[in-house]
Amino acid sequence: MLAPESATISEIQDAVATGALTRREVVARHLERIEAHNGAINGFVELRSDEVLAEADAADAAHGRTIAGPLDGVPFSVKDSYSVAGLRRTDGLPVNKDNVQDTDELTVRRLRDAGALILGHAAIPDLCIRWNTVSGLYGTTVNPRDRTRTAGGSSGGDAANVAAGFATVGIGGDLGGSIRVPASFCGVYGFRPGAGRVAEFNPNHVPEDGISHEVMCETGPLARSVRDIQITYDVIQGHHERDPASVPAGSRPTREPGRVAVLRHETGAVLDPVIERSLDHVAEILTAEGYVVEEQVLPDLSRAPDVWAQIIGTELIRDYLPVIGDKVIDSGRVHIEEMFGAYETGSDVSAYLAAWRERRALQDTLLAAMEDHPLVIAPVAGMPAPPLDFDHHIGREASVALLDRMRCVPWVNLFSLPGLALPNGIQIVGRRFAENEVLAAGFAAERHLPRVDIAPL
Amino acid sequence: MLAPESATISEIQDAVATGALTRREVVARHLERIEAHNGAINGFVELRSDEVLAEADAADAAHGRTIAGPLDGVPFSVKDSYSVAGLRRTDGLPVNKDNVQDTDELTVRRLRDAGALILGHAAIPDLCIRWNTVSGLYGTTVNPRDRTRTAGGSSGGDAANVAAGFATVGIGGDLGGSIRVPASFCGVYGFRPGAGRVAEFNPNHVPEDGISHEVMCETGPLARSVRDIQITYDVIQGHHERDPASVPAGSRPTREPGRVAVLRHETGAVLDPVIERSLDHVAEILTAEGYVVEEQVLPDLSRAPDVWAQIIGTELIRDYLPVIGDKVIDSGRVHIEEMFGAYETGSDVSAYLAAWRERRALQDTLLAAMEDHPLVIAPVAGMPAPPLDFDHHIGREASVALLDRMRCVPWVNLFSLPGLALPNGIQIVGRRFAENEVLAAGFAAERHLPRVDIAPL
Repeated sequence: MLAPESATISEIQDAVATGALTRREVVARHLERIEAHNGAINGFVELRSDEVLAEADAADAAHGRTIAGPLDGVPFSVKDSYSVAGLRRTDGLPVNKDNVQDTDELTVRRLRDAGALILGHAAIPDLCIRWNTVSGLYGTTVNPRDRTRTAGGSSGGDAANVAAGFATVGIGGDLGGSIRVPASFCGVYGFRPGAGRVAEFNPNHVPEDGISHEVMCETGPLARSVRDIQITYDVIQGHHERDPASVPAGSRPTREPGRVAVLRHETGAVLDPVIERSLDHVAEILTAEGYVVEEQVLPDLSRAPDVWAQIIGTELIRDYLPVIGDKVIDSGRVHIEEMFGAYETGSDVSAYLAAWRERRALQDTLLAAMEDHPLVIAPVAGMPAPPLDFDHHIGREASVALLDRMRCVPWVNLFSLPGLALPNGIQIVGRRFAENEVLAAGFAAERHLPRVDIAPL
Repeated sequence: MLAPESATISEIQDAVATGALTRREVVARHLERIEAHNGAINGFVELRSDEVLAEADAADAAHGRTIAGPLDGVPFSVKDSYSVAGLRRTDGLPVNKDNVQDTDELTVRRLRDAGALILGHAAIPDLCIRWNTVSGLYGTTVNPRDRTRTAGGSSGGDAANVAAGFATVGIGGDLGGSIRVPASFCGVYGFRPGAGRVAEFNPNHVPEDGISHEVMCETGPLARSVRDIQITYDVIQGHHERDPASVPAGSRPTREPGRVAVLRHETGAVLDPVIERSLDHVAEILTAEGYVVEEQVLPDLSRAPDVWAQIIGTELIRDYLPVIGDKVIDSGRVHIEEMFGAYETGSDVSAYLAAWRERRALQDTLLAAMEDHPLVIAPVAGMPAPPLDFDHHIGREASVALLDRMRCVPWVNLFSLPGLALPNGIQIVGRRFAENEVLAAGFAAERHLPRVDIAPL
């Protein structure tokens, strides 16, 4: 019999369609696995067991063996920072522990309308600002593939849940690698769509996001196959009138394999040899799939990570921490101060404005190169999943060294681009609105990579 | 015989198609009128007479009576700030007087590819920051309908050229009313598309725009009919790979007449009675066309003009003037200091960041109302065209009073929306990506308004 905890969406739906499993059995099996092992992993931080079992029963009663939507019967993990009716939304802060939400936000509503069964909320670090998942409210999330290692962050709970077989798909958000980094560290796929693809609308509160959120942050799925990424992305993407930064743009036709640039040292990233070998491997397999993969065709992007850290760091340190800093867990606040403190532009607005102008110039330099090479392959992190305490009170110098290993991550955000992290720590990045090209290359790469199994627990 | 200087695009093309006029005759007649009267108006500041006559001859030779593109044979005015091969691009500054451009920028290229005949560059105020058109390099542009009055700004040269019968269509840009205000003052139509519609790509230089440019500034046409606005907009709109803020979104289907909200006092604007009567008139004629027009259904937007002036003012005063201020004509620099000085958030970045967050909250409040009323009619300026010196060295208090009369202008920019200025000083505003709805209402209003004649000179 199919083991639903390691199955893909189509395998689950095939089992439902043939009568091999009911939706309730799919959900119950996941809840059993969570019950047995989540205590050690801490991927889920809130469960809605009774509710989701009732929803599965209702769907079984209503639809039986008929698959009633693209996500019908599929168990989901949703990052804490997304509002799910009846669950609290905390940003990881103890001060928000009673902030129960009345209503699903748009992305969650779209998932439900497609038949998704939402198991609960996944862990995050405080404020979702960290490549680790440690929160004052929920504690530490570990990597299911090696419990001495971080799951990554900030969508570390989702990545752990997908890698552990607690959920088929997770929903995260990526302002600076928060989908791609945990996906890489946990050995699953993670997709950050380009800016404007996944509309945000949350009826629970008035939005007060700064402009960098609109330009650099996007919601996307984590899963164990590119097909599951694609199916989920197709459900959650799309314009909404209340998010005017979301765009009603159609998908581009998927191209025939074209030219791919390798981003290796152009950002100044410090890369472990194992990561460089993975990059070489992805170059080889895309070449085998008919892509023309070329090195040293991209411009100097060494300023891009700095400019990203200037913009985000200034917002965190000058606008955000003064209000919320005393509510953030100490290791999180200190991490922000140590790392972003090295880059933020200070209190003077003119330096911050100059960073945005430099962003535009850098973006144009890259886009000129991408006219010839519309896809880029690059590392995500410069190293495999580090130990759990890799970013705890390490001081300014080590924090800058940490960013140096992560320099291939934030240019994708700075320039509003879509990027697909592969389970081996490499990402495929395309131009804005070219999600289909990115996913097509992802399918091509996946054919040469091992199937993503769940971690043995 | 048709007088081409007062004709619409279709009238010009009909005359070419029937053999009543050649393209050369169309252009020559415009150049004669410019020769005779531009000295008094100062709408055009650079002409390419020989080149455009040669282009007209070439098109006559190549196409004869066949109309070879949507703008074939149509004489255009293009704002100085857009690069036209062989013309200088100055931003109105004497220091840029030798800055001749090698290449057309994208919008100009799209015009040419559609058959447009570009007569020359139109006047602007220094830096394009003023609702008046006075520059250190080019002097003052006057209103062809009353030479004691301003043509408005910053696309005042285009508006004057279209109103004077010097050009059929003008191309301007609108960051804070720079298309809509001069169109209103000169009694022509002016259309600001929503953010992301008209891609910007200028091969002559690396872009270094701040983020507010991407969110709030858009290129659009000024013309004497809504049809000519629509034809030109259809040519210049569209995504380009080098402008990732431009979006490959299709147009919405044009709606049946729907619900329209009247914006009258919600921004705190001070309105002359004649402007309120024009607003009443547009409400009446849209009602006659089947729209349901309602007052007092919009939220308080009194903070929107302030937030716009905070963001733009801070960028001007903290980032722009320190570099370029000593090259700007005195009345322009002082105007910026007096008016925006009252709003800019100072040197501290946190106040500037707070303005962006307030923008997002205000935008959401408006969009919630626009779910019920997807179109808004509002004044542009609070008064008809004022005297030429209305913004010269008037001091802080009068500058704030001036902004108070213009408070219905910049919310359209702040929220990235499309807006069509009518010749009577009223604008029709829609949601982002709803340009077709705005233009449909514009056609409806136009049926009840006098045909826009050229000014007798």
